[in-house]
Amino acid sequence: MNGLEAIIRQALSEDAPMGDVTTEGIVPEHASGKAVFIAKQEGVICGLAVAAKVFSLLDNQIRWEEKVSDGTQVSEGTEIAIVQGRLRALLQGERVALNFLQRLSGIATLTRRFVTKVAPYGVRIADTRKTTPLLRMLEKYAVRCGGGVNHRFSLSDGVLIKDNHIRIAGSVREAVQRVLRHTHHLLRIEVEVQTLEQLKEALECKVDAILLDNFSLDEIQTAVHFVQEWAQKTGQPRPLLEVSGGVTLENVEAIARTGVDLISVGTLTHSAPALDISMEVLV
Amino acid sequence: MNGLEAIIRQALSEDAPMGDVTTEGIVPEHASGKAVFIAKQEGVICGLAVAAKVFSLLDNQIRWEEKVSDGTQVSEGTEIAIVQGRLRALLQGERVALNFLQRLSGIATLTRRFVTKVAPYGVRIADTRKTTPLLRMLEKYAVRCGGGVNHRFSLSDGVLIKDNHIRIAGSVREAVQRVLRHTHHLLRIEVEVQTLEQLKEALECKVDAILLDNFSLDEIQTAVHFVQEWAQKTGQPRPLLEVSGGVTLENVEAIARTGVDLISVGTLTHSAPALDISMEVLV
Amino acid sequence: MNGLEAIIRQALSEDAPMGDVTTEGIVPEHASGKAVFIAKQEGVICGLAVAAKVFSLLDNQIRWEEKVSDGTQVSEGTEIAIVQGRLRALLQGERVALNFLQRLSGIATLTRRFVTKVAPYGVRIADTRKTTPLLRMLEKYAVRCGGGVNHRFSLSDGVLIKDNHIRIAGSVREAVQRVLRHTHHLLRIEVEVQTLEQLKEALECKVDAILLDNFSLDEIQTAVHFVQEWAQKTGQPRPLLEVSGGVTLENVEAIARTGVDLISVGTLTHSAPALDISMEVLV
Amino acid sequence: MNGLEAIIRQALSEDAPMGDVTTEGIVPEHASGKAVFIAKQEGVICGLAVAAKVFSLLDNQIRWEEKVSDGTQVSEGTEIAIVQGRLRALLQGERVALNFLQRLSGIATLTRRFVTKVAPYGVRIADTRKTTPLLRMLEKYAVRCGGGVNHRFSLSDGVLIKDNHIRIAGSVREAVQRVLRHTHHLLRIEVEVQTLEQLKEALECKVDAILLDNFSLDEIQTAVHFVQEWAQKTGQPRPLLEVSGGVTLENVEAIARTGVDLISVGTLTHSAPALDISMEVLV
Amino acid sequence: MNGLEAIIRQALSEDAPMGDVTTEGIVPEHASGKAVFIAKQEGVICGLAVAAKVFSLLDNQIRWEEKVSDGTQVSEGTEIAIVQGRLRALLQGERVALNFLQRLSGIATLTRRFVTKVAPYGVRIADTRKTTPLLRMLEKYAVRCGGGVNHRFSLSDGVLIKDNHIRIAGSVREAVQRVLRHTHHLLRIEVEVQTLEQLKEALECKVDAILLDNFSLDEIQTAVHFVQEWAQKTGQPRPLLEVSGGVTLENVEAIARTGVDLISVGTLTHSAPALDISMEVLV
Amino acid sequence: MNGLEAIIRQALSEDAPMGDVTTEGIVPEHASGKAVFIAKQEGVICGLAVAAKVFSLLDNQIRWEEKVSDGTQVSEGTEIAIVQGRLRALLQGERVALNFLQRLSGIATLTRRFVTKVAPYGVRIADTRKTTPLLRMLEKYAVRCGGGVNHRFSLSDGVLIKDNHIRIAGSVREAVQRVLRHTHHLLRIEVEVQTLEQLKEALECKVDAILLDNFSLDEIQTAVHFVQEWAQKTGQPRPLLEVSGGVTLENVEAIARTGVDLISVGTLTHSAPALDISMEVLV
Repeated sequence: MNGLEAIIRQALSEDAPMGDVTTEGIVPEHASGKAVFIAKQEGVICGLAVAAKVFSLLDNQIRWEEKVSDGTQVSEGTEIAIVQGRLRALLQGERVALNFLQRLSGIATLTRRFVTKVAPYGVRIADTRKTTPLLRMLEKYAVRCGGGVNHRFSLSDGVLIKDNHIRIAGSVREAVQRVLRHTHHLLRIEVEVQTLEQLKEALECKVDAILLDNFSLDEIQTAVHFVQEWAQKTGQPRPLLEVSGGVTLENVEAIARTGVDLISVGTLTHSAPALDISMEVLV
Repeated sequence: MNGLEAIIRQALSEDAPMGDVTTEGIVPEHASGKAVFIAKQEGVICGLAVAAKVFSLLDNQIRWEEKVSDGTQVSEGTEIAIVQGRLRALLQGERVALNFLQRLSGIATLTRRFVTKVAPYGVRIADTRKTTPLLRMLEKYAVRCGGGVNHRFSLSDGVLIKDNHIRIAGSVREAVQRVLRHTHHLLRIEVEVQTLEQLKEALECKVDAILLDNFSLDEIQTAVHFVQEWAQKTGQPRPLLEVSGGVTLENVEAIARTGVDLISVGTLTHSAPALDISMEVLV
Repeated sequence: MNGLEAIIRQALSEDAPMGDVTTEGIVPEHASGKAVFIAKQEGVICGLAVAAKVFSLLDNQIRWEEKVSDGTQVSEGTEIAIVQGRLRALLQGERVALNFLQRLSGIATLTRRFVTKVAPYGVRIADTRKTTPLLRMLEKYAVRCGGGVNHRFSLSDGVLIKDNHIRIAGSVREAVQRVLRHTHHLLRIEVEVQTLEQLKEALECKVDAILLDNFSLDEIQTAVHFVQEWAQKTGQPRPLLEVSGGVTLENVEAIARTGVDLISVGTLTHSAPALDISMEVLV
Repeated sequence: MNGLEAIIRQALSEDAPMGDVTTEGIVPEHASGKAVFIAKQEGVICGLAVAAKVFSLLDNQIRWEEKVSDGTQVSEGTEIAIVQGRLRALLQGERVALNFLQRLSGIATLTRRFVTKVAPYGVRIADTRKTTPLLRMLEKYAVRCGGGVNHRFSLSDGVLIKDNHIRIAGSVREAVQRVLRHTHHLLRIEVEVQTLEQLKEALECKVDAILLDNFSLDEIQTAVHFVQEWAQKTGQPRPLLEVSGGVTLENVEAIARTGVDLISVGTLTHSAPALDISMEVLV
Repeated sequence: MNGLEAIIRQALSEDAPMGDVTTEGIVPEHASGKAVFIAKQEGVICGLAVAAKVFSLLDNQIRWEEKVSDGTQVSEGTEIAIVQGRLRALLQGERVALNFLQRLSGIATLTRRFVTKVAPYGVRIADTRKTTPLLRMLEKYAVRCGGGVNHRFSLSDGVLIKDNHIRIAGSVREAVQRVLRHTHHLLRIEVEVQTLEQLKEALECKVDAILLDNFSLDEIQTAVHFVQEWAQKTGQPRPLLEVSGGVTLENVEAIARTGVDLISVGTLTHSAPALDISMEVLV
Repeated sequence: MNGLEAIIRQALSEDAPMGDVTTEGIVPEHASGKAVFIAKQEGVICGLAVAAKVFSLLDNQIRWEEKVSDGTQVSEGTEIAIVQGRLRALLQGERVALNFLQRLSGIATLTRRFVTKVAPYGVRIADTRKTTPLLRMLEKYAVRCGGGVNHRFSLSDGVLIKDNHIRIAGSVREAVQRVLRHTHHLLRIEVEVQTLEQLKEALECKVDAILLDNFSLDEIQTAVHFVQEWAQKTGQPRPLLEVSGGVTLENVEAIARTGVDLISVGTLTHSAPALDISMEVLV
């Protein structure tokens, strides 16, 4: 992953810009030992390679052994990994490793819960760009570990015409036409619509995908039927239908049942609670 | 704040490593306009200067006007800020600005709820080092905006002898003595204890502060009384008492009532849900 | 453009890591003056904003006035821009500004020559990833200034299944299926084919675009007819057809005449000769 | 070479800021294989260590075996190097490795052609500062691989008084005197002259080298004779004579025959066409 | 140590931005050899790991063998370390390694002389923030190698209320109170005083430490007695007493004799002469 | 100066990685004021632009007014500069600004003392590469401010064949010949010699400059006479003569009297004591 090492170095420097005054006082420089990472809560583990890298950057002699792999659902008390080597490095890396591991596992865990709800309906759960600044590639990886799929990674690798774009262009049609003149031929076009009228306009523009933004359950159902009829009537391929906005663990199954293809959920990355994990030195 | 500009530049690059293909297609290069940031939920706003910086790094001509200030409690629908300038910069900065603003406001909002619960008891709510990698200084600022206080910023500016240190040193006493020989004279010493026995040992070492880690409510009460009696009996100054572990909005008031000085809460930074905020272009 | 400022700073440091010993000896520190950029050859100008930035990074008081704009075809002797300010900054920036300007203008000029040849046939000329390391965004901009269009910017924003991928997967079909399971829904799929058999397989996979790699003129013509018949017969949409490999100013018109959609040309960026431009101090 | 690793990392990030979506979909994470680099054109190879580094930065387990060494003249079809290891790393590094290799080999190849022309006359071919921004040290290395010599590396390690300096100082003499007061004692002084008058003035200033800028063949011959006579007459050592401006493969031999010492050629680095090289996965 | 590698890389680049033209001309690329570091003067060695890192960054095959360890007092002529490997790397690293080694050993040597003087009195010698920009962590390490102790590392990890702060706040009391409301509970408070009046005010504020700034020997003695009496009279703990300003090797013993706890000496880092060390290639 | 801003940013971050806890507690965020920089010792001031930059990077509204200029000899008590603006920025920048200013002024002051001693003899005082890592360009500037001249800036911009090179090459002659084949034509050749025999060999190689390394006063005198006679006898130009090694304020005048051209002094940069300067806030 591009730049992962740089990110971890910055995180280590943030957590100990001038050394670890407690550990340097207590732990002899060459003392070595072993510590175990334990899940204190049920959940899906994610970020083991990041944690391993934290320790290897502090001391390239450290040994890291994984007891489970990323994407594994574990129960409370499960041993996740063992780390062995210089005790100072273990203690100095502890919090940084856990901060990554807990956040990524939190995201994977929450994603898994959404994915499980919609699994019977063949619908995919996708992430958004509502990720933590500087951690997007990691968080999108966590979503995949939880069973979700990724939406575009950035503003550079996917066209999504949103509310504000349409307002500036004046209409869905105008926005789509401008984009078609500009983007390279390997990018599809998706349009975010707020109303049935916009949905119709988008269909006529033959876009590749349509995002129903903040539609109620009834409106989603209506939209799905409308699009299916339109496709049959016109013989055009039916665009991919995505739903976003206000999706919760409570309503996601009902949304999936309407027949949309993709449900994107900002909560996965902007509001997933951390999974409780701890590191304990074995003496 | 050291390095804030660098962090924002990285975030912008992460969100558009090769430009914003949608916006560049739709919005004319020199078109300008105005957008408004609106709270879609009740909460405490935090991070306005960060959002302002996002836009000024994209275009140093952009004007930013704040309608509220950091730390303000706002109701749903409140206008938070207005941004004016080149539309392309507004759209390219939107998500990055919101990602910072929503996270920091989420932390400030959750902190405010904890602080409000304990306010009657003169107890302070503190953060921890369980922060998002690379965003610690910002998140600690958000805690202050919410009314909380900061714990140490890193391993370099405060001595906290934890579980693992004690295990390695062999005893609380040995750990404290080693640290006293090492750290400079402007740092206090805090010890994390798991049991009443360790608490007694820490008192005898005359440490400056004691952290009761994962104590039950009853154990906290017992500890507080024990420390008070010890102080009276010995004529020694009573060390500061901190509680951490398993603190929730439900039990924080009861903990505050026991007479401890400080309650530190990892949830403030590792599990605060984002505050819902949006940016709308005005046409 | 992300990181442009950083690139220019590196270029300036490369050209004067320890100052400009000639200029510092000869030109008084506060002497100011004016210089003019002149095209010594006919061609298409590109990179004026980069040159302007070179000087503004050396001295933010410098004034830069453009006499033409990027994309303009100029004749030999045309004044391109005037730069005014501290003479030391003018001389120290000269070579770096010219190195950018001459290369980008060289690319724009060569692109324009290709574009002019194919203009009557409604075919587009595209660039490739065969760009100068670290200068890709600039060079792709130069291609647009010359009238070309951009292909994908990187391995991250477009799926192009190439020779080596097919060999590893075992077949076109297998490669396409694997990619479809992996990529997000906003990316199209293009397959590079070497033979008519692979072309047929790609059509059956319903990919969005097909790249005819190193086909002879006759083979291209055959392929175009084959695809058209297949589309009529099956009622499927005809995929976009791209040609690449061995394209020259001599054969590009004939290729365009075959009815393909896109001709991509590595030469545009890897072998365009620099356009001759000079900077003269006016005394 | 200072900073080479940083440059390659930037190049890799430029070519895959968010991963290689095609390869990640098609090639299993742990699949390994072998690929061969083949010259598709006759020329001089240069940049093998750079290509090796590209792959080792992607995966430090990769094995790289060179079949020829930098500076070797190869014929079409020659195997240049074999790379073995994780297939994903091979594919992700392919284009970046080739972009370096093709450009540097292009420069070495063109340099060799110039050098061969002037070899019988004992004249050296030198490069200029007209190099690709950020790649100067590599490109100067390529010139050496082609048999050329390097001119100064930057504005910091050589004094070259040019046209613009003379205009600002008012005369060759004044410019030389100012520089002599300023530079350290390990730098020689070269002056660029446009006319015989300036040449005389430079001789009287006893500079170490003189650059005849854009002189015609006749003017060069006249200048060489003039300088020889002056040296005999005055008993002064004859300064080194350099020619630059308008040098081509067609006229370089005639220039060499005039008896100058050094011919510097901007074309070597700013306009050398890339050498065609490809990488093929062996299955 | 955070960022040490980055600092060494910058130092290497500073000393050879475009290679080592002498060594590259004289020493064959693959020639290897051995060199020895020798103290040319009596003193305390410090910085061996830094020197080792200099060479390992130039060539990771180089072997480094230490004959003494950091903190060792050596006599003139002592062999400090042996370095073996590629001769080019040895010569290119020589000056950078020595520049670090000589400076750090100079600091350790001077510190040792101060420490020796005060050893009989149980007083500690501390450094200050008057360190070389970018080298603070290294220089503070050198002070420890010389037997001194560190004062705070930065403005972030210790509260020291100085002259200018008191002037701005209006009084010692006001300054102390403001700081107490702001800083986290793990930081002590030290106040710098210029007069006995300020000393009294500081005592009443119950600060943890008091710095007597630029006091004469008599004034220091008076202050020590005053503080002792105050402590006895009030039953308060006696704050730590630090002296700073105008401390020299001549007067430091007399100061130590007054009974203060800590003497901080800017000279240790801002004016220590380098220790003379050389590297000799063994042929 | 390349990278000066980056160096100052690193220095500021080093001195306050997590803010200035004292100042932030005491000084209101928007309070502004004025401070004066005062020389506490007689000496030559150097580094005012660096100090100014320190403050402008902390707050671009700060005003900086210089009372003297770099290179001015000042007496104790002289006001050097006034800085006005936000008090927090003044206090946070104080130590960093002083650390630069005191070191650079210390170097300029010591250089001035050496220069004054040799002024009557027309001999120049030069610096060496024995500078503080990362601060070389600044320290070489300080030497110029003190009236000295610069030796080469790095291993890249001057050829100096030293002891170790000669030992590896086998002889002075062999070393010189190898270098001549390698370096570009704008670099002179200097050889460091330890004996009269080496001196003779160097003369026969017609090098441009000779460094008498660690010669006694008598040996220097003998060498100067020998070189003069050789020049007369052979009619060759006399190479520049440099002395280095063991030069002190006590013996420098005697060395200058021998008739050498250049005396280089490592002490100027590796052992100059800081000049005492302070910053006082005016209230």
